[in-house]
Amino acid sequence: MTIKFKTAISNVNAGDEVVRGENLKNLIVAKTFTEVIFLILRGVMPTSEEVQMLNAVLVSMIDHGPGVSSALTARVVQSAGNDLHTGVAAGMLALGGNRHGGALGGAAKFFQENFETQDLPGLLKNLKDKKIRVPGYGHKVLAHDNRTDVLFGVAKETGFFGKYSEFANTVHEEINKIASKKLPLNMDGANAAILSDMGFDWRLITGFFLIGRTPGLVAQVYEEMQSGEGIRRLEESEIEYLGS
Amino acid sequence: MTIKFKTAISNVNAGDEVVRGENLKNLIVAKTFTEVIFLILRGVMPTSEEVQMLNAVLVSMIDHGPGVSSALTARVVQSAGNDLHTGVAAGMLALGGNRHGGALGGAAKFFQENFETQDLPGLLKNLKDKKIRVPGYGHKVLAHDNRTDVLFGVAKETGFFGKYSEFANTVHEEINKIASKKLPLNMDGANAAILSDMGFDWRLITGFFLIGRTPGLVAQVYEEMQSGEGIRRLEESEIEYLGS
Amino acid sequence: MTIKFKTAISNVNAGDEVVRGENLKNLIVAKTFTEVIFLILRGVMPTSEEVQMLNAVLVSMIDHGPGVSSALTARVVQSAGNDLHTGVAAGMLALGGNRHGGALGGAAKFFQENFETQDLPGLLKNLKDKKIRVPGYGHKVLAHDNRTDVLFGVAKETGFFGKYSEFANTVHEEINKIASKKLPLNMDGANAAILSDMGFDWRLITGFFLIGRTPGLVAQVYEEMQSGEGIRRLEESEIEYLGS
Amino acid sequence: MTIKFKTAISNVNAGDEVVRGENLKNLIVAKTFTEVIFLILRGVMPTSEEVQMLNAVLVSMIDHGPGVSSALTARVVQSAGNDLHTGVAAGMLALGGNRHGGALGGAAKFFQENFETQDLPGLLKNLKDKKIRVPGYGHKVLAHDNRTDVLFGVAKETGFFGKYSEFANTVHEEINKIASKKLPLNMDGANAAILSDMGFDWRLITGFFLIGRTPGLVAQVYEEMQSGEGIRRLEESEIEYLGS
Repeated sequence: MTIKFKTAISNVNAGDEVVRGENLKNLIVAKTFTEVIFLILRGVMPTSEEVQMLNAVLVSMIDHGPGVSSALTARVVQSAGNDLHTGVAAGMLALGGNRHGGALGGAAKFFQENFETQDLPGLLKNLKDKKIRVPGYGHKVLAHDNRTDVLFGVAKETGFFGKYSEFANTVHEEINKIASKKLPLNMDGANAAILSDMGFDWRLITGFFLIGRTPGLVAQVYEEMQSGEGIRRLEESEIEYLGS
Repeated sequence: MTIKFKTAISNVNAGDEVVRGENLKNLIVAKTFTEVIFLILRGVMPTSEEVQMLNAVLVSMIDHGPGVSSALTARVVQSAGNDLHTGVAAGMLALGGNRHGGALGGAAKFFQENFETQDLPGLLKNLKDKKIRVPGYGHKVLAHDNRTDVLFGVAKETGFFGKYSEFANTVHEEINKIASKKLPLNMDGANAAILSDMGFDWRLITGFFLIGRTPGLVAQVYEEMQSGEGIRRLEESEIEYLGS
Repeated sequence: MTIKFKTAISNVNAGDEVVRGENLKNLIVAKTFTEVIFLILRGVMPTSEEVQMLNAVLVSMIDHGPGVSSALTARVVQSAGNDLHTGVAAGMLALGGNRHGGALGGAAKFFQENFETQDLPGLLKNLKDKKIRVPGYGHKVLAHDNRTDVLFGVAKETGFFGKYSEFANTVHEEINKIASKKLPLNMDGANAAILSDMGFDWRLITGFFLIGRTPGLVAQVYEEMQSGEGIRRLEESEIEYLGS
Repeated sequence: MTIKFKTAISNVNAGDEVVRGENLKNLIVAKTFTEVIFLILRGVMPTSEEVQMLNAVLVSMIDHGPGVSSALTARVVQSAGNDLHTGVAAGMLALGGNRHGGALGGAAKFFQENFETQDLPGLLKNLKDKKIRVPGYGHKVLAHDNRTDVLFGVAKETGFFGKYSEFANTVHEEINKIASKKLPLNMDGANAAILSDMGFDWRLITGFFLIGRTPGLVAQVYEEMQSGEGIRRLEESEIEYLGS
């Protein structure tokens, strides 16, 4: 007998499964999806404050229209004549990229690795000189992102506005002393700080975006299936041929 | 100006997004993830019974151990040296297959297309003769799946044990009159019937499995990343070479 | 010991691998990629005519610009901040869709299942009434696809213009008796007929598109990586919001 | 008019496509797949030596049995009830991981960035101290990989055994002065050095693995489809449940 996987997540015994020590049948009857998401990722049942905070975080991520690269990918792949799950999975490949939802994990990594720095201005100056953007700051059009205010409002109410959220604000101030245009602390940055203050490892934090956005990707792909538009492609006028 | 996508899902106006007519900031503060999942897929806010039922359905799907083909795929892909989202997306490709989580949509299709049949025994006999399995029935080891009892219990309590759930039970009885071994109405079948009774189109129903299982896939891939096991592959003893 | 996979493809014995009965080291030294593609899919070494024909088929598929849904998907996914292989794999998900490269297999299935029909006009009329398009016919702008002439030219030269290619031409004539606009036998249709005449099962034939287009997807994703364009998304002007 | 993509790869003008300055119809009639792969990735037609070398490289990559993580993934995903292209794309996600085929690009990066180092022993000692493995060296069972000899043999014959191949051998010698067990220069390392000597950028080099292995993945997934095995999963005996 070769043991292939060791797992502490769940113990499947046919129809009698235990998830992180809790009987699945009891969870089905008595717990919300958000509570069990917390349980499976953290190993213990959440407090009511943790549930409230996690709901706010996941709801904030649910959809951002058909034009962002994850939804665009998901709809194009479905339009080529694919099943719903294939479109959603392709969208997830885009979503996790480090210029898209993967920025959540990138921002959390930055906060968790640097919050004790003695020389934040020097660190930020060094990154700016190397043209490395700090993830979690900046927005295509907004100079101030008031979704951040909303999320930090819930964080203050529930007790999760802690050292990483404070640090995210400090970084925000320092970045704007040297930035060429005003950069907001955006929603990804706020969520990264809050999830860090909730105690999650940055390596796991991009996973919350995958969980929070999947319903939006399902909705986008289903809408595409119902649209009757046929296969999507660029117009020739959207392509410029270079070379011979 | 070429309009590429028409959408009724969300209206993104920089930091002021509206999802199905509801301001996202209000949703973040006041609604649970499950409520907003329902909203984005259905277009209206759920009743408290719909929330209770949907929580039960999603919780029932959250994980089924590392050995099922979706989790196995997700962990193997991560183990080859990939990011978290790449493993989860690969797992989702397996998950939606029609022999795996895709059976949810297959069962819902069967119920929605056939519940008014005048000759169920004839229909089932015909499928059996063609060796087509009815999705939602059968289990590797269980003769009775008591997760089905738990889910139907919540459905009765919330008023979603309706015509499709009744039909699922009738199919169950009829199938066992002709099956060579006792087939339970399994959890996929129960969820397919309940989601049909909640009013969801079968074309969308596989999407609930994608939403419900993503947290489990995230947990599995994260556990694999932390395991230090290195790349996974079969042993040579697990392969039999045929031919020359 | 549990045997998991039985395979007749290759026998891996550490550094001494045998592919379909041929020692891999000998293949490396003495055979072309096209010859070994044929070998691994067919189980025997090709004749020179088979090599010539397969080269023509694979070359015809290599790229079709950045605007088709597979290349668009591949570039968008890379642009979100992903590795080369992730972009290429996402592009392949689009490519295999039955409205895109998957049409190759669809056309081959149609030819292989129907070439002995006694009533082709009736069959085509029936499909037209049900608004089912025959894959392999039609083009966005072309009334005649002279790539088909080129491919059939090679097929005649090499002896692979056989019963399926004849049938594809017959279907072409019959379809245009009832079509509302002139439909060419397009390149996918020609390749599907030729690969059928070479003896390949339609279930395998979409695989030739995956093989033939992967170099083009690699080129597209690499070009995107070098472009410095950043993340791709639709403009707001390309989206029309419906509903409240 | 918004230009979305600029490309120098191909100029698609309906049925009259130009690839890197060459008319596609001429390529179909007169060139091999390997020649056009080189053309599309490099921008010019290859010499006969380049064709011979590239054939050897691609053939060496074509398959490595069903047990490696890419083929395992591809077969498991298909077995869950998915289309051929979905299985192949999932396999490609595993394949590009940096512990699997992605090691090709990793080795090429190491050679291209370090071949002018003045202190190779110091560099290797430093990596060893940090427990960073040099990609391209080592094998599960082999102390010497004679596929490397075969590939370097073709490289010497065609004139592509150049500075990077020399460097790969030097690194091999130096690594074995400090390694705890004898490490071969493996096939990935040899191919990475040869493709570097052919003038390819390391950022593109993993792409050759995607091209070379796709036929093998197609063969594996097709064999799985024909096998009648049903969905693959681990046995319960292959999982060890930890925790409560």
